[in-house]
Amino acid sequence: MGKIYVVGIGPGNKENMTFKAYETLKNSDIIIGYKTYISLVEDLFPEKLLIKSFMKKEVERCEETLKLAEDGKTVSLISSGDPGVYGMAGLMLEVAKNSNIEIEIIPGVTSSNASASLGGAPIVHDSVNISLSNLLTDWEIIKKRIDLASQGDFVITLYNPKSKGREFLINEARDIMLKYKSKDTPVLIARNVGREEENFVITTLENMLNYEINMFSTVIIGNSNSFILKNKIITPRGYRIIHK
Amino acid sequence: MGKIYVVGIGPGNKENMTFKAYETLKNSDIIIGYKTYISLVEDLFPEKLLIKSFMKKEVERCEETLKLAEDGKTVSLISSGDPGVYGMAGLMLEVAKNSNIEIEIIPGVTSSNASASLGGAPIVHDSVNISLSNLLTDWEIIKKRIDLASQGDFVITLYNPKSKGREFLINEARDIMLKYKSKDTPVLIARNVGREEENFVITTLENMLNYEINMFSTVIIGNSNSFILKNKIITPRGYRIIHK
Repeated sequence: MGKIYVVGIGPGNKENMTFKAYETLKNSDIIIGYKTYISLVEDLFPEKLLIKSFMKKEVERCEETLKLAEDGKTVSLISSGDPGVYGMAGLMLEVAKNSNIEIEIIPGVTSSNASASLGGAPIVHDSVNISLSNLLTDWEIIKKRIDLASQGDFVITLYNPKSKGREFLINEARDIMLKYKSKDTPVLIARNVGREEENFVITTLENMLNYEINMFSTVIIGNSNSFILKNKIITPRGYRIIHK
Repeated sequence: MGKIYVVGIGPGNKENMTFKAYETLKNSDIIIGYKTYISLVEDLFPEKLLIKSFMKKEVERCEETLKLAEDGKTVSLISSGDPGVYGMAGLMLEVAKNSNIEIEIIPGVTSSNASASLGGAPIVHDSVNISLSNLLTDWEIIKKRIDLASQGDFVITLYNPKSKGREFLINEARDIMLKYKSKDTPVLIARNVGREEENFVITTLENMLNYEINMFSTVIIGNSNSFILKNKIITPRGYRIIHK
């Protein structure tokens, strides 16, 4: 009988992959994933059978993974970042509900953490992750969550901040945050983290929409104590520091 | 001039460390960290100068790191998990405010993600991280955040859920969550993740206090859609699955 691994490859490059993720892919018969993620690992495993799947084919991808494992193969289904954060871990477990195939989740460095590391330490205190994708979640629920997270003075990481046909969502999200958060709240926009075109900008809640935000971006909005120092964001944890 | 790396070693074992974290430690002159974290890496780097620091000595630890770097050394200050999530990243940047030493943050697999991977896919939808430590954060603020996160039907990961002298906090936290979340909400208690004694239990919000929770535990409370399947928690993202 085969086995399924749901593997987090981290933000994109081998450097930010864990040893366990790498070894698991190396020891699998087949690696399957969304085409963009497969393209991130194909140079590492030229001898391996790679199956590229497509957007909105998530259920079919899990069904195919299950079928291959039931045929006796060791299959790695990959997600970028951590498969347990807006990744494939839950869906794979659900699809395999009636099967006896063993499924193991291999965690990875998720986008909020990899992005934060570029721009200082914005999420070093209480924080929330919210996806702005309304494909599977009602927009009213997402807006309510942004409202409550802002009331709670949480640091907020927005996953899937913008994609075609949903450009207005980030504007509404910002308006809700401005009800509770100062317009000067530091904001990090990180793009293509761990990939060739990696770059970031530090701005404020007031000005964030003046910068490019696309589907390969992660947006992190600080809390009321966050401040900018040397083009990095720091969210203090409350330690007393005496500068000599 | 030296350089400072603030390195996330992941949950504990080498397996869940990234290649970049490992290489950075290998190429450093000195590794400094809280004694428990140093003990997790000392077998990997027997030839390296290791400096063990102590709890509540976080500011002094950063000052020592800075001094060593100013003396020309390449120094890795380590945190378990991700240094940008309740780790040393922010404090190090603050302490080095008036210095020209370059500081690089190396992200790692944070505890909520490593813990979640053991117990299924509990945090695969919108979620919050809240630390129950009231050493540096006012307990009233923490309680307010638990309340708002529960109202928002977020998955909630509790960091530092219990330690000596603060045993009552988790009880109060649970009472607040029960105002909005069903008593049957699935709960994962993960202990010593990535370390020798790694283990976990799946329970419910009603019963969670009947199980051991200590300072090496992470507690993850699901949302209203989370369910238990084969001793794992799944928080559906909304995909439609037809079981044949």
